[in-house]
Amino acid sequence: MNSKTPDTPHWDLGRIVTELRQTRERWRAGRSRDFNSREFPSRDKIDQVCLLLRSALFPLRLGPADLRREGEDFFVGHALDSALTTLRCEVQLEISHLERSGDTPISDAQARQRAAEIVTAFANALPRLRQLLDTDVEAAFRGDPAARSVDEVLLCYPGVLALVHHRIAHELYALGAPLIARIVAELAHSETGIDIHPGATIGPHFFIDHGTGVVIGETAVIGQNVRLYQHVTLGAKRFETAEDGSLEKGQPRHPIVEDDVVIYAGATILGRVTIGHGSTIGGNVWLTRSLPAGSSITQASSQSRDPHENGSA
Amino acid sequence: MNSKTPDTPHWDLGRIVTELRQTRERWRAGRSRDFNSREFPSRDKIDQVCLLLRSALFPLRLGPADLRREGEDFFVGHALDSALTTLRCEVQLEISHLERSGDTPISDAQARQRAAEIVTAFANALPRLRQLLDTDVEAAFRGDPAARSVDEVLLCYPGVLALVHHRIAHELYALGAPLIARIVAELAHSETGIDIHPGATIGPHFFIDHGTGVVIGETAVIGQNVRLYQHVTLGAKRFETAEDGSLEKGQPRHPIVEDDVVIYAGATILGRVTIGHGSTIGGNVWLTRSLPAGSSITQASSQSRDPHENGSA
Amino acid sequence: MNSKTPDTPHWDLGRIVTELRQTRERWRAGRSRDFNSREFPSRDKIDQVCLLLRSALFPLRLGPADLRREGEDFFVGHALDSALTTLRCEVQLEISHLERSGDTPISDAQARQRAAEIVTAFANALPRLRQLLDTDVEAAFRGDPAARSVDEVLLCYPGVLALVHHRIAHELYALGAPLIARIVAELAHSETGIDIHPGATIGPHFFIDHGTGVVIGETAVIGQNVRLYQHVTLGAKRFETAEDGSLEKGQPRHPIVEDDVVIYAGATILGRVTIGHGSTIGGNVWLTRSLPAGSSITQASSQSRDPHENGSA
Amino acid sequence: MNSKTPDTPHWDLGRIVTELRQTRERWRAGRSRDFNSREFPSRDKIDQVCLLLRSALFPLRLGPADLRREGEDFFVGHALDSALTTLRCEVQLEISHLERSGDTPISDAQARQRAAEIVTAFANALPRLRQLLDTDVEAAFRGDPAARSVDEVLLCYPGVLALVHHRIAHELYALGAPLIARIVAELAHSETGIDIHPGATIGPHFFIDHGTGVVIGETAVIGQNVRLYQHVTLGAKRFETAEDGSLEKGQPRHPIVEDDVVIYAGATILGRVTIGHGSTIGGNVWLTRSLPAGSSITQASSQSRDPHENGSA
Amino acid sequence: MNSKTPDTPHWDLGRIVTELRQTRERWRAGRSRDFNSREFPSRDKIDQVCLLLRSALFPLRLGPADLRREGEDFFVGHALDSALTTLRCEVQLEISHLERSGDTPISDAQARQRAAEIVTAFANALPRLRQLLDTDVEAAFRGDPAARSVDEVLLCYPGVLALVHHRIAHELYALGAPLIARIVAELAHSETGIDIHPGATIGPHFFIDHGTGVVIGETAVIGQNVRLYQHVTLGAKRFETAEDGSLEKGQPRHPIVEDDVVIYAGATILGRVTIGHGSTIGGNVWLTRSLPAGSSITQASSQSRDPHENGSA
Amino acid sequence: MNSKTPDTPHWDLGRIVTELRQTRERWRAGRSRDFNSREFPSRDKIDQVCLLLRSALFPLRLGPADLRREGEDFFVGHALDSALTTLRCEVQLEISHLERSGDTPISDAQARQRAAEIVTAFANALPRLRQLLDTDVEAAFRGDPAARSVDEVLLCYPGVLALVHHRIAHELYALGAPLIARIVAELAHSETGIDIHPGATIGPHFFIDHGTGVVIGETAVIGQNVRLYQHVTLGAKRFETAEDGSLEKGQPRHPIVEDDVVIYAGATILGRVTIGHGSTIGGNVWLTRSLPAGSSITQASSQSRDPHENGSA
Repeated sequence: MNSKTPDTPHWDLGRIVTELRQTRERWRAGRSRDFNSREFPSRDKIDQVCLLLRSALFPLRLGPADLRREGEDFFVGHALDSALTTLRCEVQLEISHLERSGDTPISDAQARQRAAEIVTAFANALPRLRQLLDTDVEAAFRGDPAARSVDEVLLCYPGVLALVHHRIAHELYALGAPLIARIVAELAHSETGIDIHPGATIGPHFFIDHGTGVVIGETAVIGQNVRLYQHVTLGAKRFETAEDGSLEKGQPRHPIVEDDVVIYAGATILGRVTIGHGSTIGGNVWLTRSLPAGSSITQASSQSRDPHENGSA
Repeated sequence: MNSKTPDTPHWDLGRIVTELRQTRERWRAGRSRDFNSREFPSRDKIDQVCLLLRSALFPLRLGPADLRREGEDFFVGHALDSALTTLRCEVQLEISHLERSGDTPISDAQARQRAAEIVTAFANALPRLRQLLDTDVEAAFRGDPAARSVDEVLLCYPGVLALVHHRIAHELYALGAPLIARIVAELAHSETGIDIHPGATIGPHFFIDHGTGVVIGETAVIGQNVRLYQHVTLGAKRFETAEDGSLEKGQPRHPIVEDDVVIYAGATILGRVTIGHGSTIGGNVWLTRSLPAGSSITQASSQSRDPHENGSA
Repeated sequence: MNSKTPDTPHWDLGRIVTELRQTRERWRAGRSRDFNSREFPSRDKIDQVCLLLRSALFPLRLGPADLRREGEDFFVGHALDSALTTLRCEVQLEISHLERSGDTPISDAQARQRAAEIVTAFANALPRLRQLLDTDVEAAFRGDPAARSVDEVLLCYPGVLALVHHRIAHELYALGAPLIARIVAELAHSETGIDIHPGATIGPHFFIDHGTGVVIGETAVIGQNVRLYQHVTLGAKRFETAEDGSLEKGQPRHPIVEDDVVIYAGATILGRVTIGHGSTIGGNVWLTRSLPAGSSITQASSQSRDPHENGSA
Repeated sequence: MNSKTPDTPHWDLGRIVTELRQTRERWRAGRSRDFNSREFPSRDKIDQVCLLLRSALFPLRLGPADLRREGEDFFVGHALDSALTTLRCEVQLEISHLERSGDTPISDAQARQRAAEIVTAFANALPRLRQLLDTDVEAAFRGDPAARSVDEVLLCYPGVLALVHHRIAHELYALGAPLIARIVAELAHSETGIDIHPGATIGPHFFIDHGTGVVIGETAVIGQNVRLYQHVTLGAKRFETAEDGSLEKGQPRHPIVEDDVVIYAGATILGRVTIGHGSTIGGNVWLTRSLPAGSSITQASSQSRDPHENGSA
Repeated sequence: MNSKTPDTPHWDLGRIVTELRQTRERWRAGRSRDFNSREFPSRDKIDQVCLLLRSALFPLRLGPADLRREGEDFFVGHALDSALTTLRCEVQLEISHLERSGDTPISDAQARQRAAEIVTAFANALPRLRQLLDTDVEAAFRGDPAARSVDEVLLCYPGVLALVHHRIAHELYALGAPLIARIVAELAHSETGIDIHPGATIGPHFFIDHGTGVVIGETAVIGQNVRLYQHVTLGAKRFETAEDGSLEKGQPRHPIVEDDVVIYAGATILGRVTIGHGSTIGGNVWLTRSLPAGSSITQASSQSRDPHENGSA
Repeated sequence: MNSKTPDTPHWDLGRIVTELRQTRERWRAGRSRDFNSREFPSRDKIDQVCLLLRSALFPLRLGPADLRREGEDFFVGHALDSALTTLRCEVQLEISHLERSGDTPISDAQARQRAAEIVTAFANALPRLRQLLDTDVEAAFRGDPAARSVDEVLLCYPGVLALVHHRIAHELYALGAPLIARIVAELAHSETGIDIHPGATIGPHFFIDHGTGVVIGETAVIGQNVRLYQHVTLGAKRFETAEDGSLEKGQPRHPIVEDDVVIYAGATILGRVTIGHGSTIGGNVWLTRSLPAGSSITQASSQSRDPHENGSA
């Protein structure tokens, strides 16, 4: 095609494809792993699994619009069958992926076996997860004066949706599927703005109101009957670095929040501190130390100053 | 199927389905309502209604890509016909749902009649809503130095999208469909990170820039020509509790913001306080008292301290 | 149809359509432009383009689930061909739209020619963008102790997704397609809660953790190896107003952040200030002045006060 | 819009819409019925019902690709629940539609009640239909030397698909839902080219090979173990006309085909004749009289003639 | 990738792609036309146009399920606007395609202008087409003793669907868009098994019963009130060949069927013969000569012969 | 749920599910095979494969609407990669399925290996298939006086579509995937009404006009440059039965049609007869004997008889 017609765009598709391949090859050259195929859990598949699990856990509210009570068990059984079968494949992919980089890669049959064990344990946990979630729905209904019914709470409250995902993700995390757990968590993060690491341990009757901007770290431990508002961070104060300068992973580094604590909007609590039973943390509070049970703490007051130094972008 | 083939996963589908049913029954046993069917507004249907209303309100910008001006009225009429018919069904479901728990449940015919009245009043309000939204688009265009045209504002600004949903939701809330109004609001919350309760009263020429993390409570009252930035909270200071300890619902508990006020990013204003006409609230300010007209207030300044106590998760 | 059947809803569709048209006409009458058709870039088309570009840049991770390495180049070539052809049409629409309001509107052929030039330059930049994004993925992996692999980072981290969109948007912004660039940015904003204006200049090895609520303004300049946490704002202190009271556009008004800076959650930095090389900005810090290299700054500490003045909505 | 831009097409949309409405009104004026709404069974809904019933009857072959035997009953129950609920609505629409034109229109509640009775009877018949269809699958497998397995027969043979639809349609026809039965039949007609009127009575072990062009009339009666090839017509000889010249409806006017008959391709049998047990009808035979048991009949032989008088279009 | 993993399939994708390109190039080398792009009407687009036109012509029966009478005109206007705009683009593609091979290719502007004229004329014809189709629906209802209502006829009868397509296709054929007309006809052919060439001229009150296998040629002329059954062919006797051996195109070569004729199943009529007013042609008749008005003709009778010489495949 | 609400339909879902399971179990009990899972090729997957292969064989006509010539190879490579990978899985399923019933079932690895070999051979044959199909397109263009261009032929002619499927199916049949080949053929049968068994051997330059009702049997052999019209059957005269009464499979039992033969509409040719080179078979001819080269044969003429014995249903 020597002479371009006036209609032809000017980019040289072949050359760009070649340069992109070279870039990929440079990137891969720096890594020892085999990149022959995806062999990695698929975000779309995990999304399907989550939608099926949500509808199996709450069939009449989050299931198909025409479901009647007589058909509930059939629907739940079919949705679970499909969700668990897909999940087993994805867990197998994760296991194979993780082991490939190790010294003694496991066989397909071993990966398949371990995936079946993990998903079986997860399946057995589902009735318990539903009971836990019922306490969260209850807590949301009681905690918000604007809530009219538990149905409204289940359908409308982003905090409840984030909890449904978290309780699924935490179970998978504990059973040994941390990548898939992370994807489950990020799907809720994208939909609600609430970012709970799958590793966080959260007791029953938990309620997050509004929710956008909440961040809860991997090693946080939250008791029962705790209430959080938007923009609350339960984070790490700083990262421990190993002698070689790399970050140490897996150390307890996020707060412990005991039972019956309320944390208002924008509060930031950092480090392995303990917020004692029944405490109240005021809005926008910045806290890096432990508090005894029954504490109440609020932010320093604002002052008047040059009104032109304001924040916008 | 006595001998499991190696391929069969190990979970016992039938047992898990049974346990989930028992869990649902325990939950339902604690409530007196009839759970025979969904009979509840559908989030998916409300989503469809919102998309249709958005395109009917702004046909050449938010309608189908191939729409020409000659066909505008036909499109608007067809989109409204479909949206309002669906909305009437959903409103009827909400009315029946709310009344079922009451002492004197209403008949299907009554619910149908009331739904038709609500949706008719809503339909009649649409031209007024479009006029209000035109003032919001105008305000966004004037308020952001980065805005190039009103078209860009309508297509790109999450604050404008949140306002389209809010003005629809507020009308439905006022007409007696609070659950559907809440779903309309949450759809925008999920898409934009802006959480405006349908009960909030907001005047014309309102603009929210960036928007993520904004929370506006149920009884907030906002005048005209007000501008807000990201992470601003107009919330309740604390909840009034009745003598029996339950939260009192419906009390005015959120701020009144008068005309021409600007509130910068991260500011938090709590309780039934009044921010006087023309005031400016600085970024990150924490405010629980009223301000006279023309006030300017900013946060206390930061100080240098141990650099290692920082926030991360 | 004189006598309405009981089934007929009571709204008068024809009247509402007429009133909506009159409202549109009033709005348009205040503007001089021709509104005969959309002739405006489509958000849906830009969304398609972004999904194709994402999968062409990272085919084995963000491409189709069944892609194998042998087929990578074919997939990349086909995805790019489709993405670039669609993009050229949208860029042509933007150019025509922008020029219509000007004094000397350009011809269709001229708009087509300029669009082809812009998209060709964009296409040629793609291998460079991929290299930049590889440094961002690397930075995310190193910066988060919870990250297990670069694959997890690419699939799960909203900060990485926001960067993929930003690097695309920034290129289009610089080449003269600011409206489309803005739509690309808003698509990521809606999905991640991270709001980066396409004009912002960002160096390699950039990492945003958690991300929800981050806002980065149009004229911000960020060096290499910078790390940000959730709710960080790099904004303008105040807007310069021209003599006629209108906002001045295009002035440098956002911070310069030099290499190796870390900014913790909730920090707000406003105005054309410079944060010197290697500085650390603590969580929730409010900053409107420049800092020398190596600075460390944190927020004032909180105090105890009336525990009932808390923030909720 | 007085002056058309060169871009505007020349048709006058408003005028054409008006003329089409006038045409519809003229048509409706000639009929007495109320045309306020569709209130008529939907072809799309019936199509959904058929797909669900097909997969519920043969779950492992016509159901979802990932179905395993453990989940079969759950799938069947859920598919039936959805299919039967939808079918009940459509049957109610048909009943109301048919009765509207009558002298004593029935109430919504009556129509709903009758629809529930019809669908209940239909549901109870499903296991019997599956047994009948098993005999048809068996007959197809035995009757075609090219068939390799019963699975191939179920997946590939249009004759079997047409029988699945017919056995459903015939049941609905007999129970009093002739319009829906007709739609069920036409869906198979469009997919296979086999046109069996729902009224036709067909015994077990029936097989149609190739099938395209087969027509079986409303009052045909077919015994067991009958085999048909493509283009066979079992039709009416002529229509009986009543004294007023209108066609008499419902009279027996199609053939009776006894057990163990084979009818080869292109044969045409017309009128209320009886083809005796075990007969064989040759290809292209034209037959308007009864045959005793055990008959064999073939077409007259062809002759050589002017080779240029051939058929083409 | 020197050493193939056991998982890699053995085909060489690159080589096959190359060989396919060489094959395409050989094919194109034998033709003089430019093959730079599709620039050809799209079957999918024509399919969309047909679905829209069908629903605009019969909105309450073939339109959306929730359409009410009040919204009919809005729906019709919007559907037509979309259908005609798409059709104009496709007609322009056809005109450009046809003219490209000619000696004096026309400009884009000319093609656009001619397309607008054709579609405008087509749009103006739509009310007339609807009136014609009303006569066909009427004829189907009267002609089939099994028909219960005109609604059933419109929804279920493949012959009516084929006529809707034919009357659209014939108009487009006559106006100068023969390729698109052919696609319209083939869409009905695939759905119904009825193959009517768009060139055929067909009067009002036309009815085809059952329909599968009917073929009507390009120059056939059919009067009013004609009835046809399945497998009827109105074809050409033989093709006229020009002196160079090529087929002569466009000559009248198919039958003329006058008013009130009935042609039964399987009859074949070939050549430019005339079937006189009121004639009846029996099933399977083979006819290559004209018949006077009022004729009745049937096939020779069958004889008994060796029962084993039968037709199957 | 003792007392049914008036709303509950009367069918007993649980009982019907149980009875359907018992019916399935009875059916399966009569067969020795394992029915634990589908493990059978999926019609939907084969459909996807066919659509991809069609667009890869003719990218600018049957590929995506926006494809340009520059992107052709990338599209073809990606479509083939996806099609062949899916096809390999389906072929593996077929092999495992066929072998399961045999005495020595093969391992998964063996089935995988054989599937890869079959699909590799198939992939290598694609350029040859495209060349063959080019001759068919050419033949269609030459053979129909109504055809205007080869593009029209490719887009509109059902005979060409059926040939595309047949040439794919025949290759798969010959390579050892007869079930999948059969599904490929049936997909075309459903769409075109043309039923060609994958086993039939067909030379280049083959053309079927109109096509509905054509049936070509498994062992038919067709030379080059042959033309067929609608309703032509190339079938078996009768089936050979083995001593035990079962049908003998795989015997040559369909006609051999030599080069340059034309067979007009409705002709039926049965048995292992040979139609000599250059013969013409007239419309509706019934033929069960061989013909020498250059023969011309037509049907016996029709006679007048009782006009009331006609065919309808």
